[in-house]
Amino acid sequence: MKVHFIDPNKVHYVWDNSLDPAIEIDPGDRVVFELRDVTDNQITPNSTAEDLTKLDWNRVYPLSGPVYIKGAKPGDALVVKIIDIKTKGWGWSAIIPGFGLLAEEFYEPYLRIWDLSAGDYTTLDGKVVIPLNPFCGTMGVARAEKGKFPVMPPGPFGGNMDLKHLTRGSTLMLPIFVNGALFSVGDGHAAQGDGEVCVTAIEAPLYVVLEFDLIKDANIKFPRAIIHKEPLEEFSTYYVTMGINSDLMEAARDAVREMISLIVSKYNLKREDAYILVSLMGDLRIAEIVDKPNWIVTVHLPQDIFIEE
Amino acid sequence: MKVHFIDPNKVHYVWDNSLDPAIEIDPGDRVVFELRDVTDNQITPNSTAEDLTKLDWNRVYPLSGPVYIKGAKPGDALVVKIIDIKTKGWGWSAIIPGFGLLAEEFYEPYLRIWDLSAGDYTTLDGKVVIPLNPFCGTMGVARAEKGKFPVMPPGPFGGNMDLKHLTRGSTLMLPIFVNGALFSVGDGHAAQGDGEVCVTAIEAPLYVVLEFDLIKDANIKFPRAIIHKEPLEEFSTYYVTMGINSDLMEAARDAVREMISLIVSKYNLKREDAYILVSLMGDLRIAEIVDKPNWIVTVHLPQDIFIEE
Repeated sequence: MKVHFIDPNKVHYVWDNSLDPAIEIDPGDRVVFELRDVTDNQITPNSTAEDLTKLDWNRVYPLSGPVYIKGAKPGDALVVKIIDIKTKGWGWSAIIPGFGLLAEEFYEPYLRIWDLSAGDYTTLDGKVVIPLNPFCGTMGVARAEKGKFPVMPPGPFGGNMDLKHLTRGSTLMLPIFVNGALFSVGDGHAAQGDGEVCVTAIEAPLYVVLEFDLIKDANIKFPRAIIHKEPLEEFSTYYVTMGINSDLMEAARDAVREMISLIVSKYNLKREDAYILVSLMGDLRIAEIVDKPNWIVTVHLPQDIFIEE
Repeated sequence: MKVHFIDPNKVHYVWDNSLDPAIEIDPGDRVVFELRDVTDNQITPNSTAEDLTKLDWNRVYPLSGPVYIKGAKPGDALVVKIIDIKTKGWGWSAIIPGFGLLAEEFYEPYLRIWDLSAGDYTTLDGKVVIPLNPFCGTMGVARAEKGKFPVMPPGPFGGNMDLKHLTRGSTLMLPIFVNGALFSVGDGHAAQGDGEVCVTAIEAPLYVVLEFDLIKDANIKFPRAIIHKEPLEEFSTYYVTMGINSDLMEAARDAVREMISLIVSKYNLKREDAYILVSLMGDLRIAEIVDKPNWIVTVHLPQDIFIEE
């Protein structure tokens, strides 16, 4: 087993199966990545909300790679073991006009810079403790189709899945569509709830070590994972709010609105901070999807994170 | 605080705000319920799949109640504390033609009778351990509108929410629409995953103790809850499958198909049993709902439940 160090400056901003590999490795090898934040360093610890309006979107989603895995063929599965992930002292969250589940209600740019120097947690103004469970929002392989494809939407090739459970110790399996798989990674997140409702997690530069392997002829249709419970996610009590609707998207919106309303009235946080907090610590679940014609989406938010005065 | 014992034979099969109360109580009182299974005893420990085709659907969803809470007014919230819940030795799960998330792929009636006599777990043919976390699938108050409404679809009044987290120790809050609230309960479940994908949980008669209180002028729009982690839900490792689609419902279907495929190939279970197992132990979550235009629904299934040979 060999450990490779990929050049941090070898990044690409679109999915494109004609890209030259940044590195070639054997199955069983490890690669050490130093990932930029999702804006490619356009947001810094000194940024203000105004900087969100000046983003060069062609530089958003820098991906490190591609990694060419020798012997990988279409139909095989790429096994990605998440060996280690570390944050680097800071991160940010934002409300970005035009994005997010409640884009029509939250349309002003809003930015929060997080101090991650404590290493395994941060706080919202000393009022809420946010444990850090870093993971890569985007891990994927080259698509079958020729061309340049934006990074934002995920697909059967994985990509921007924002699956918060892919923390240290987890294993991801991806379908492979081209020889060598051409794996790339980016979009570091230090904390996020299922759903990522405001469109940002704690966005953060990350140090990441991944180990790669192959399952020949696995023929899976979508990414799969084996995950473990994070010790830092062990809360005792949760608030649950819900939306009930014949449309799951509308149910999700109502459930998030309800949780924002609960946080604002109970803990006197700003509406924008409550929305971001749901994005970072609230989990979207589907309570029932069979009681025709109304489905229920719930938001679960740990009560334990609020510091009682 | 007074403890009331409601007559188990006082049941109703529709939501109707003109029903006479089965019992009147003061805020702070407790009520002990003996709930029939969701088919009103039409399924018994000796039933076969054929009995599913002969169900009298006018007798499905028997609800115990209504409970009239003195002083309850529209705009108040009804607080329902789940004090105790016990199973009664048996339960059942089924694939019922025309129902469930994958109704077009699973169209033959299929029935499993579960031995719950061990008290806190059952097994699937000795191959899978299923811990019991009983809760009431249906808890609701009378609707504002006059008329008779079917029990199956939930709504802002609560009802058939199938929120599996409402186990012993949890607290439910319901908006109130009529004087006295007129609370009813039924649809006992001994185990269920978020989503209840095959349309049945472990359906079971239950012994239930609830304590009622009021929050005046709460003016909540949807039900809310405060829940606690169940010790029996403490698993270490989970399989995750996903569907990725611009439609959340289709994403959910693909994620469930993927998990059924994983179970069948890895553990050699019957396809029908795998579907029911996802309904009982698989949780539907929304990994991301903001990466336009594709959303991700995941199914999380504990690996620990499978007994290795």
